Amino acid sequence: MNTLYYSPGSCALASHLALEEAGADYETVRIDFGAEEQRKPDYLAVNPKGRVPALVTDRGILTETPAILLYIAQTNPDAELAPLDDPFDLARLQSFNNYICATVHVAHAHRGRGHRWADDPAAIEAMQRKVPESVGACFALIESDMFEGPWVMGETYTMCDPYFYTVSRWLEGDKVDMAKLPMTAAHMKAMEARPSVKKVLENHFS
Amino acid sequence: MNTLYYSPGSCALASHLALEEAGADYETVRIDFGAEEQRKPDYLAVNPKGRVPALVTDRGILTETPAILLYIAQTNPDAELAPLDDPFDLARLQSFNNYICATVHVAHAHRGRGHRWADDPAAIEAMQRKVPESVGACFALIESDMFEGPWVMGETYTMCDPYFYTVSRWLEGDKVDMAKLPMTAAHMKAMEARPSVKKVLENHFS
Repeated sequence: MNTLYYSPGSCALASHLALEEAGADYETVRIDFGAEEQRKPDYLAVNPKGRVPALVTDRGILTETPAILLYIAQTNPDAELAPLDDPFDLARLQSFNNYICATVHVAHAHRGRGHRWADDPAAIEAMQRKVPESVGACFALIESDMFEGPWVMGETYTMCDPYFYTVSRWLEGDKVDMAKLPMTAAHMKAMEARPSVKKVLENHFS
Repeated sequence: MNTLYYSPGSCALASHLALEEAGADYETVRIDFGAEEQRKPDYLAVNPKGRVPALVTDRGILTETPAILLYIAQTNPDAELAPLDDPFDLARLQSFNNYICATVHVAHAHRGRGHRWADDPAAIEAMQRKVPESVGACFALIESDMFEGPWVMGETYTMCDPYFYTVSRWLEGDKVDMAKLPMTAAHMKAMEARPSVKKVLENHFS
């Protein structure tokens, strides 16, 4: 049994969707970011980074979305959520997910987490102003050079898809013009037709 | 034969060290960031992100350091640079490398690449001022909660070590007090005693 610590609206949605899609045996614990639960001793004992997701396994605790997604794929091989026997294709999958975590998520985080990188309120506002442009540029690059379609890696749904969907959900709040991102919009629609996605979203947002 | 595109001082050092440590068959191409070669059409055809590293393989081109490191480990299994048969330990390794790329490298990048996240020169200066604190906090967390010693994952040298060493080399420029990071300092010294590291550094900086 694995336990996923998450908060609604966070990138932990990707791991939650992956667990559901894999048919894994898991439970969830919701962390209330409004009450700053992620900074309290009980949660810091689970994840000293003070962030979600954290996946508690029988062997220990894992953090960082691309690592958790690979772990879920490897421990649920029947679900075929990653090309586990092909190092090149697996590296392409990891490369996509790393771009999401290190560039796309980071660009987005300058809207609500600017205090991580500057103290001056005017600087934090300057960061917020650039988010539509910087996040929009990431998604434009994904559409022009990375996204194969209809799923991220092509014909087969993989561990890239729940992660890409998770950050696509932030585009509206980031004030990125969705009309310029037709592949992303179609991917969101395809994801939302999956029973696993419907079930997890209901859990997060009801 | 793989070809690594790199620039001296960049995070591509991690992939270069890994190729050398793995005994892989490879060659390198140096990209001159001073001449903005990474933004020119020839290089954008290799990597449309305009960044290094990029690893050209017989199957195609790979980017993003944690993905490249996993690929090198998987395609050079005799070098035993990752726990390839243990999904949990492999996820721990990937988790460490993802923290480096998405949090440590990102904190550091606010010193020289602030223009990615704000246009206002005063905001970019505000970001630069916070780098010693934000990067220092990352390394303090690594020492308190992640670094096993003597290597990142414990007794065995893995794909975490060349990456951790690469970002540790930025600490002096980031004005982080090394006296507070004894494990990191010892790790740097241990890395610099390895023949593979000596050889690659000579290539980068001579």
